[in-house]
Amino acid sequence: MKTLKPADVMRLALAEAEAAGRAGDVPVGAVVVSTAGDVLALGQNRVERDGDPTAHAEMLAIRAAAVSVGAKRLTEADLYVTLEPCAMCAQAIAFARFRRLVFGAYDPKGGGVEHGARIFERPTCNHRPEVVGGVLEGDCAALLKTFFQERR
Amino acid sequence: MKTLKPADVMRLALAEAEAAGRAGDVPVGAVVVSTAGDVLALGQNRVERDGDPTAHAEMLAIRAAAVSVGAKRLTEADLYVTLEPCAMCAQAIAFARFRRLVFGAYDPKGGGVEHGARIFERPTCNHRPEVVGGVLEGDCAALLKTFFQERR
Repeated sequence: MKTLKPADVMRLALAEAEAAGRAGDVPVGAVVVSTAGDVLALGQNRVERDGDPTAHAEMLAIRAAAVSVGAKRLTEADLYVTLEPCAMCAQAIAFARFRRLVFGAYDPKGGGVEHGARIFERPTCNHRPEVVGGVLEGDCAALLKTFFQERR
Repeated sequence: MKTLKPADVMRLALAEAEAAGRAGDVPVGAVVVSTAGDVLALGQNRVERDGDPTAHAEMLAIRAAAVSVGAKRLTEADLYVTLEPCAMCAQAIAFARFRRLVFGAYDPKGGGVEHGARIFERPTCNHRPEVVGGVLEGDCAALLKTFFQERR
């Protein structure tokens, strides 16, 4: 059992987010880590680069992790992402049955976990991961703020 | 301008759904059609075959259509699907800015349009397509019912 701290994993997600931003995509990054502490997949937002409206960091990380594990359910894994997931990604996280979701910045406008559709709070939601928000919140939010300021 | 009727397009989606069912996946199919009447993409549920929890028919059709059009926004297109989309797919439909969503069977348990998260009704939802439900509802629902009965 490796001892990865939440902030250490979030720093990996932040590096993915930074790479996305340098490439012109909104800087959001994600990491899937097994409960044993192994990194199963990385993901970064590629919506602009791929011209794909579904290419959020979480979606790409989930798909890559499912391929890596060889299973559609990631019950023995946690998903880390620099920004509160939207409703699309939150529902994908529920389908994948992650043990835990850890995110950095809160997203009152686009979020679907603590805001908006609040996917995991729906009575019909198939699975509710443990949710931890605000890990390295300042760094994750600052990266987004700087990105949008530079583009105004 | 071709004159494709909604039921004609839904029959294409039903053929995709049937193919999914024959391959052991829950029989759901989707079609993206341009407002000019051209089929831009087909999609069928591949969750079991691909071991990918995000591989819903709509997600695959949206990604294929975005590649086909070369743009992340499908404002001049409609999405047809045999089953009411879940919250993940509904949010993807909003991101892609489809003009219209047409679906067959209603899904009180897993749907995210007329049920559950009701994605398009959220004040923060970025885009609300026109929604038409119940096209070939009987055929679409029967296909699912038979699939699950045979597996019990």
